[in-house]
Amino acid sequence: MKTKLFPDDGYLCQTFRPMKPIAHIHTDFPAKFGIPRQSGLVDTLEGQVVFEPAFRHPDAVRGLESFSHIWLIWEFSETARDTWSPVVRPPRLGGNRTMGVFATRSPFRPNPVGLSLVRLQRIVCGPDGPVLHVAGADLMDGTPIYDIKPYIRYTDCRPEASDGYVGALHERHLEIVFPDDLLQQIPDSKRAALLAVLQTDPRPAYQEDGKACGMAFAGHDIRFHVREGVLYVEGVRKI
Amino acid sequence: MKTKLFPDDGYLCQTFRPMKPIAHIHTDFPAKFGIPRQSGLVDTLEGQVVFEPAFRHPDAVRGLESFSHIWLIWEFSETARDTWSPVVRPPRLGGNRTMGVFATRSPFRPNPVGLSLVRLQRIVCGPDGPVLHVAGADLMDGTPIYDIKPYIRYTDCRPEASDGYVGALHERHLEIVFPDDLLQQIPDSKRAALLAVLQTDPRPAYQEDGKACGMAFAGHDIRFHVREGVLYVEGVRKI
Repeated sequence: MKTKLFPDDGYLCQTFRPMKPIAHIHTDFPAKFGIPRQSGLVDTLEGQVVFEPAFRHPDAVRGLESFSHIWLIWEFSETARDTWSPVVRPPRLGGNRTMGVFATRSPFRPNPVGLSLVRLQRIVCGPDGPVLHVAGADLMDGTPIYDIKPYIRYTDCRPEASDGYVGALHERHLEIVFPDDLLQQIPDSKRAALLAVLQTDPRPAYQEDGKACGMAFAGHDIRFHVREGVLYVEGVRKI
Repeated sequence: MKTKLFPDDGYLCQTFRPMKPIAHIHTDFPAKFGIPRQSGLVDTLEGQVVFEPAFRHPDAVRGLESFSHIWLIWEFSETARDTWSPVVRPPRLGGNRTMGVFATRSPFRPNPVGLSLVRLQRIVCGPDGPVLHVAGADLMDGTPIYDIKPYIRYTDCRPEASDGYVGALHERHLEIVFPDDLLQQIPDSKRAALLAVLQTDPRPAYQEDGKACGMAFAGHDIRFHVREGVLYVEGVRKI
């Protein structure tokens, strides 16, 4: 069941808070397909957070360099819509079981807000103001960022937390067959990240075995299929 | 230096995402004063998250009960303003040192969005739909909630994270002198939480020793002063 977010019952008359992008992130994913399902799964993935002109104050990040990890609060800009559904089908559950939207990190939420923990590698000040170099981001290239906060262990780190229904799931790791002549076409600095992304099984969960798939990464279109736990790369093309 | 959030340079023409409250939280803090500086510091503090009528679907929280901890993404509704400053003065640094706003969890942010990790005690379904009973919330009564997400250990829990400039700070814990006749006026079920809140030193950091202070908690006005690490409760009055 889908419900209009703005029914005609006066709900619109409430005060809505306009959220403004303070920054955008640059990553190697020009499309949604292939992005790891959570942040931190592929630490070799690199991204750069570039502030909007109005927020390019070096002072605004003073002290941030002392933290190893930071939160990004961002917009699921690709999946924002004007309806919502109380339940979603998490791909990690095979795509055929439903869960309450608030029991998932699904992008299809009443407010399309994402939360990602990334590793802060360094802050580089240049003509675009301070640029945050981060690792492990599960964000599409160009995603608008609403807020950046330091990771504070004494309040954010809860090793005793239960894993909920997520705990029973195994992280799938595929074996990769990537012919050397194809791998050579990928820039050296991007290979480790691409291999790690492919290992996480970038297919939609409901994809059948053997079907041809593609994903765009770092300016290349990667074609592959998966059969019995092995991902075979079939083609690499510059885009 | 403060900068208008909406300068006259066409910035307003960008698309802003309207955020709508999906729920509100009820806590024992009718005012900002005395609220712990982070979530989880006082686990005995209880709160209830009540969904807005449009979002009262029991299905929307299906599966959430399997998690022990959840994220609340919420609005700093008391501190939202139309200017922003690149630096803030964190109270834990004594209120006289500045840090970049993105290096702090300060409420005075370009987008007034708060992030809190709370313990999910239980979900009770009733006439107001599913109500989430949570512990450890650092939110004012009535705070609008934008989103609720499960805490996922493998992505959110980073014991190896550095503590940044926060690591060098000691959490202050006051000794409490609470005369028995005054303590009796506080409902039995609220005493442990109140004592724990007072221990965290609810004074603004720049408050001098010995000055009379007050805070509102669970329907009572609590008057006290602090001298040499001891907090003396002087009066309790029902409000």
